Amino acid sequence: MADSWVNSAESLGADLHLELTGPGSRRAVLMRALRGAVRSGQLAPGTRLPPYRSLAADLGIARNTVADAYAELVAEGWLTARQGSGTRVAQQVAPVAPVRRQRTQPRASRPTYDLVQGQPDPSAFPRGAWLASARRALTAAPHDAFGPGDPRGRAELREALAGYLARVRGVRTVPGRIVLCSGAAHALRLMSAVASGRSGRWAVESHGLPFHRGLLAEGGVRTVPLPVDEHGARVDGLGAVGAVLLTPAHQFPTGGPLHPERRTAVVDWARSTGGLVLEDDYDGEFRYDRQPVGAVQSLDPDRVVLMGSVSKSLSPTLRIGWMVLPEQLVDDVVAAKGEREQWSSATEQLTLADFITSGAYDRHVRKMRQRHRRRRDQLVSALAERAPQVRVTGIAAGLHAVLELPPGTERAVVKAAAWQGLAVEGLDDYRHPEFPAEGRDGLVVGYATPPERSYAGALDALCRALPPG
Amino acid sequence: MADSWVNSAESLGADLHLELTGPGSRRAVLMRALRGAVRSGQLAPGTRLPPYRSLAADLGIARNTVADAYAELVAEGWLTARQGSGTRVAQQVAPVAPVRRQRTQPRASRPTYDLVQGQPDPSAFPRGAWLASARRALTAAPHDAFGPGDPRGRAELREALAGYLARVRGVRTVPGRIVLCSGAAHALRLMSAVASGRSGRWAVESHGLPFHRGLLAEGGVRTVPLPVDEHGARVDGLGAVGAVLLTPAHQFPTGGPLHPERRTAVVDWARSTGGLVLEDDYDGEFRYDRQPVGAVQSLDPDRVVLMGSVSKSLSPTLRIGWMVLPEQLVDDVVAAKGEREQWSSATEQLTLADFITSGAYDRHVRKMRQRHRRRRDQLVSALAERAPQVRVTGIAAGLHAVLELPPGTERAVVKAAAWQGLAVEGLDDYRHPEFPAEGRDGLVVGYATPPERSYAGALDALCRALPPG
Repeated sequence: MADSWVNSAESLGADLHLELTGPGSRRAVLMRALRGAVRSGQLAPGTRLPPYRSLAADLGIARNTVADAYAELVAEGWLTARQGSGTRVAQQVAPVAPVRRQRTQPRASRPTYDLVQGQPDPSAFPRGAWLASARRALTAAPHDAFGPGDPRGRAELREALAGYLARVRGVRTVPGRIVLCSGAAHALRLMSAVASGRSGRWAVESHGLPFHRGLLAEGGVRTVPLPVDEHGARVDGLGAVGAVLLTPAHQFPTGGPLHPERRTAVVDWARSTGGLVLEDDYDGEFRYDRQPVGAVQSLDPDRVVLMGSVSKSLSPTLRIGWMVLPEQLVDDVVAAKGEREQWSSATEQLTLADFITSGAYDRHVRKMRQRHRRRRDQLVSALAERAPQVRVTGIAAGLHAVLELPPGTERAVVKAAAWQGLAVEGLDDYRHPEFPAEGRDGLVVGYATPPERSYAGALDALCRALPPG
Repeated sequence: MADSWVNSAESLGADLHLELTGPGSRRAVLMRALRGAVRSGQLAPGTRLPPYRSLAADLGIARNTVADAYAELVAEGWLTARQGSGTRVAQQVAPVAPVRRQRTQPRASRPTYDLVQGQPDPSAFPRGAWLASARRALTAAPHDAFGPGDPRGRAELREALAGYLARVRGVRTVPGRIVLCSGAAHALRLMSAVASGRSGRWAVESHGLPFHRGLLAEGGVRTVPLPVDEHGARVDGLGAVGAVLLTPAHQFPTGGPLHPERRTAVVDWARSTGGLVLEDDYDGEFRYDRQPVGAVQSLDPDRVVLMGSVSKSLSPTLRIGWMVLPEQLVDDVVAAKGEREQWSSATEQLTLADFITSGAYDRHVRKMRQRHRRRRDQLVSALAERAPQVRVTGIAAGLHAVLELPPGTERAVVKAAAWQGLAVEGLDDYRHPEFPAEGRDGLVVGYATPPERSYAGALDALCRALPPG
């Protein structure tokens, strides 16, 4: 190795001369060039570099500049310097720049239309109003908004939410009982951390998000399914479980609202057993045939945890959600969340607080309600005209509808839809694995996601995929 | 209970009449008033409400309005309606509004001055520049920025970071190997989820954040301490551990930079054992006596995970951090993080991307570097003048310094500081519990946190708390 050396700037020269005319200090440029030469393998491990005096002369720059650059690269571990053996390229530097391996598996071709439930149309995000709120919020924020905050989240947003949720969802709480989080998934992680110790068996609806069940399983909770009918979950079957996770406003995905008697029954159950009701209020603001039914939480704020977020109403990318908690759970949830706000951004929290208190949130929800309602009406009339044998079940609410299919046809319809370039899911995709597949065939149609221009095409593809009457 | 009823609007009357002149639809106002009366106990459980005809007549509003309000409250579970027994207040409604229990324990009085390390001065947050970036970013963002995103985080920010970290920290990577997260704590959670399976024993520095060690322990990692001297961690003692967590640029909190030979030695160790180096680059941009030493990551991008965030450079409240990963870990980290971006906000990510590429980040870091440096100089000269027996150890870098104290005096000094109204921590607060307390007494002074106006007072309190020479 002692023979492998660079005794002038020649092998580095061209690039260096070019670069030295570029921006930045000469030392920085030289360092970048040397790192580049090592990376590319142009300077192999063990290669001896020219004495700094000669390199400086070759490049027409100050000796100190070269000496500093060498010393720097020695400190970083790129070069080594030993008495009597000069400055050399270190042995340990991986010579080749990392390149992301190409995945060998070809990507599935993207469907033309997307009616998979879950998201509002991203193009409907109210950018202007959001920016206006950001400007007001950041201008008005006290300095402490940029320091370590309340582990429950910003008080401004918790106050705005306490008022908003009381007005719109009938929620009974105070800001001190609200803990902000990054969304429903985060809320479920926190609740399983806090409450799985009581009893590791929780009841869930027979149909629901597999993602949510997975989060509970990771948190050490074993879920047992409750049957679901047009009045929501059958809570009379609640046995020895520690908690029950429900979607009372609009059962997800089958679409029934929880019957009033079941609302009081589940609160009764919680009171008599010490159990907990987790109310996933994921789309409670979107009801099209009447005012939304208020939250179960209002029946007993000491037994019900309400979880909500802006993921359906505004965008899932803001990562802001909330938990309205019984007094006795606040400290445990905060402890599980962590001593400082480690999750959602304080500037976004302040922006959302302004967005709510300024009325912009109400305006946006109203606008989206009209839009979703129109989309749902379009779906219903397209079906009435072209597939009258298919019934739309569930209430007029939310961002999705369920189409009842003849028994045994669900898989075939999902497949036929894929042939039409349409992504859509069947009811069975949401079934709890321990719940019997009882021939309840259906299609879960998310009508809120497509951009306006492609919605008619999506409906057309859907109708073509449905079984003939 | 059958006798307890309200046969007119009288008991509700005054409030209702007042409220009905207020804003909102009459049905909504009536519902609010009835809920309020139930909550307050004015209407006890089981109380029979007046027939809707008579209430409508009393209030001078349409019968349908009252009928609708009753039906709504039945649906919500506040009231029950049975044939022949009229409409009654439900038994299950908790009659008293929840009030946050006052903590009986008196709060410790707040210290006047705060030199606990960890945060930049919140009043230094660049609100105007950040808002300008937010405006540009949200205006330019494609629609998909508001839909479910890449689980690694927005590509715009990963690209900006790849360039920035290469330029400023010598990091060698490509955007595809960067995964965004909510900060160092999130990064450690993810790394312990991914890498604790290899070996549950990880080496950490003898002194470091207890919070970080706690996160690793929660993730199933047992930590073993490495001794630390003025050249950083002694990595020659690395035995059979799966990974080592280091702060190479500026050992936290003792303040030495990792010696060049140790930099290459730890990479050698990783190569020969298949181990992983976790480089916590928490304050790498802040060095005051020379250019910062580049990241160890550049020595071997396939063996070193670099973790960074904007928590020290901008604000801990933005909740944006990053992990620069070896190719072979990317998929596992993404799987642990979750299939969608569930954590940091996409709009904040886009804003930071603009903040970096527009040069605003460089400007802010430069400004803060000057400011921190001035604060450190003030600390050093205050000590030289008033406590010359106390030596400042560690390099001129970061947001904190360590003051060497006579053996056995640390606790007394921390206590004396508290008497001076000054919050500050001792070196022992950061010691790994399994590492011997070897009489290395010191004070960890965070000089970046106080607002400008109170820094001189904080230094004065500090000097008064130090032991006489």
